[in-house]
Amino acid sequence: MNGSISPSEAPMANAFRSTDKDSLSGTAARLIDRRDAAMGPAYRLFYRSPLHPVRGEGVWLYDADGRRYLDMYNNVAVVGHCHPRLLAAIAEQSARLATHTRYLDETIIRYGEALKAKLGPGLDHVMFTCSGSEANDLAVRMARTATGRLGVLVTDHAYHGTTSLTAAMSPALGPGTPSDPAVVRIPAPQCDGTDPSIEAERFRAAVLQGIDTLAARGIGFAVLCIDTVFSSDGLVPGPVGLLAGAVDAARAAGGLLLADEVQAGFGRVGSDFWGFRRHGIEPDIVTMGKPMGGGYPMAGLAARSPVSAAFAKSVRYFNTFAGNPVAAAAGLAVLDIIADDALDARAEDVGNLLHYAIANETASDPLVGAIRRAGMFMAIDIVDPDDPTLPNAGAAAAIVNDLRSRGVLISATGPSENVLKVRPPLVFDVEQISFFIEAFRQSLRT
Amino acid sequence: MNGSISPSEAPMANAFRSTDKDSLSGTAARLIDRRDAAMGPAYRLFYRSPLHPVRGEGVWLYDADGRRYLDMYNNVAVVGHCHPRLLAAIAEQSARLATHTRYLDETIIRYGEALKAKLGPGLDHVMFTCSGSEANDLAVRMARTATGRLGVLVTDHAYHGTTSLTAAMSPALGPGTPSDPAVVRIPAPQCDGTDPSIEAERFRAAVLQGIDTLAARGIGFAVLCIDTVFSSDGLVPGPVGLLAGAVDAARAAGGLLLADEVQAGFGRVGSDFWGFRRHGIEPDIVTMGKPMGGGYPMAGLAARSPVSAAFAKSVRYFNTFAGNPVAAAAGLAVLDIIADDALDARAEDVGNLLHYAIANETASDPLVGAIRRAGMFMAIDIVDPDDPTLPNAGAAAAIVNDLRSRGVLISATGPSENVLKVRPPLVFDVEQISFFIEAFRQSLRT
Repeated sequence: MNGSISPSEAPMANAFRSTDKDSLSGTAARLIDRRDAAMGPAYRLFYRSPLHPVRGEGVWLYDADGRRYLDMYNNVAVVGHCHPRLLAAIAEQSARLATHTRYLDETIIRYGEALKAKLGPGLDHVMFTCSGSEANDLAVRMARTATGRLGVLVTDHAYHGTTSLTAAMSPALGPGTPSDPAVVRIPAPQCDGTDPSIEAERFRAAVLQGIDTLAARGIGFAVLCIDTVFSSDGLVPGPVGLLAGAVDAARAAGGLLLADEVQAGFGRVGSDFWGFRRHGIEPDIVTMGKPMGGGYPMAGLAARSPVSAAFAKSVRYFNTFAGNPVAAAAGLAVLDIIADDALDARAEDVGNLLHYAIANETASDPLVGAIRRAGMFMAIDIVDPDDPTLPNAGAAAAIVNDLRSRGVLISATGPSENVLKVRPPLVFDVEQISFFIEAFRQSLRT
Repeated sequence: MNGSISPSEAPMANAFRSTDKDSLSGTAARLIDRRDAAMGPAYRLFYRSPLHPVRGEGVWLYDADGRRYLDMYNNVAVVGHCHPRLLAAIAEQSARLATHTRYLDETIIRYGEALKAKLGPGLDHVMFTCSGSEANDLAVRMARTATGRLGVLVTDHAYHGTTSLTAAMSPALGPGTPSDPAVVRIPAPQCDGTDPSIEAERFRAAVLQGIDTLAARGIGFAVLCIDTVFSSDGLVPGPVGLLAGAVDAARAAGGLLLADEVQAGFGRVGSDFWGFRRHGIEPDIVTMGKPMGGGYPMAGLAARSPVSAAFAKSVRYFNTFAGNPVAAAAGLAVLDIIADDALDARAEDVGNLLHYAIANETASDPLVGAIRRAGMFMAIDIVDPDDPTLPNAGAAAAIVNDLRSRGVLISATGPSENVLKVRPPLVFDVEQISFFIEAFRQSLRT
């Protein structure tokens, strides 16, 4: 057990610290002790006073004491917690059949077709995984096979998953995760008011520099991986068009483009169903996950046929649970609910109103810096009141925890952990805006 | 798209070949066309005439024409297809709450405690993943962190998963999957009537040789990975005690032992709940999957606390869907059903009777070589009638397909694709033995 890695704690914004346990109720403290004993030290909880929800409905979570919390964080429950139509789809298909992709199944095929229709032309083949991590891992395997090269570019504070490969592609996990010489980090774009064409050129230059770094290590460039809203880099939706030059540069160097839509996809960005389409770029592989099954574990990818054909030439693909008929039924229900209730269009409209309300509320607050948004995904920078260029992680954490005590759930993210991350289920409604604003006002005062 | 990999088809026993499509019904052919168009060329189907099940119940699958098939292959449905108690657990918890491990949740903790109780002392911490692939990938990450070394030993025809790392640990996927210098293959034990002490010594020597091969590459030895029944190596349950010497040798070299129980675990081997316990060995990490949720996508691992502590020192772990309350409710239901219906004890008793019946039926059949078994997991070698030392993949494929036409589902496996793989849900009953034997008799005659 000789550790080659220094004994630093892995960083995480909004993590519960065991030193805070003495301030908790006996019930919570006992549950945490049992949890630590069963699940060990690698798991983390959110909040200084961890939440203990026992029931969910729509945008609300209810704790063991019957108190309700406005969920403005969980994007997996994209159609809201416990949507009756989704529950019915899961229960009905579970009671009928739950096998795998080595048998013919019409539900799986229908889902594949529905997803392809949502992705549009060019993304010819969909493949199923159990998690976004597996989707990104498979996507990079495919890109490496298709290009015959190994090199991967990711942004400086990206998160792409928790397999060995994708963890090495996830600087957001902190320095304790071993790095991989075939993975090179490049600065994410900024969204700081710079002229968009200058910012686009800066990101294009970063991609070229990354390819050079790979080349200097004797590693060919295979794939540029981008979360199309740069969620873990602090949410950088950027002006539309920001990415096109960088993508062209990657292509010109013989590399592929992987659009990680695990956070951005399924209507989250409002104006489009996918983050890549909002930017008008054309990925070779698109990965997706979190909201895909509305809570049922499922994820996947779509690839251009040259990529899937090159992969299939030498490798067959099977994943026991992925693409099972229950997952397909859940996925179909999520797509249907989003379409029937126009949740993607709503994400734009309601997200816009939420944005206005927050901007109006905080216009003269020295704690609040930039506000960024794509659809129903918002980032609020918390800064030093005396120097707005300095991030203020302490105040961000205090706000997140104060909001929790007022019945509103958000979290913090970003390289400096000072970015409030607001990402509610897409059924979040205008009625809830004032509830949030009132709580936020009081949190900022406190 | 310059391919560094030769354009060979990835091998797979019992795979449908598109050249057989002309012999199928119009409905099946059209479904296959739609499937290929939506899901691409990397997916494979079972059987020359792919199965199209639409409903499952207990040990039976029903196709679109209402015909029933005795399922003697699918171990995921460990408690049978569509078990009412499992369905109720999934439906109830889905309707209540489906969040994640960053909130406190009593169901997750209760499941972790129940699993630990099943694993016994020493395996201190359980962690949750979505798939067996993720479990093995995380296990090797943890082993590498804990030892500070990279080297992995796997057996010659092992299958451990489909992530980049675990695919490189899965020679069963064929030569098209890139190899990894840190992964060294060693011959699996044989079960061929050799004196067990000689076979044990041979496997011990293979482990030492593998460690030497790693050392010659300048790579330290981190972990010996074994499927405790060597499923993909053709099922080698081996005499109890076969593995102890090899495990001691791995430990003496400072490596850890990873027991992959994805196929062997949850009562499959009958005499014990886990394959490692049947062999009386003490793994540092145990991975599990397929039957864990009875069809609900979930998997996980258990680790000794020095391993989980070393990992947690530098790395935090989160997996969005894994360990969600619905998975925990499904997992608890599976454990309860196995315990209440004594399915593990049954696996030994009914498996034994099935073994007798097959041995009796095939005693003088020159096509049938060795029969191996652990609980309710059987392997039947199909050999050349003129030379029983030669594997007979063609006859094995013919039997698998003929049995399918007679309403019995099994598959083939092993390095030479000549091993019939019989692995029914554990609710398989004595009543079904004669149904199988009658079909098997006719298949052997044909």
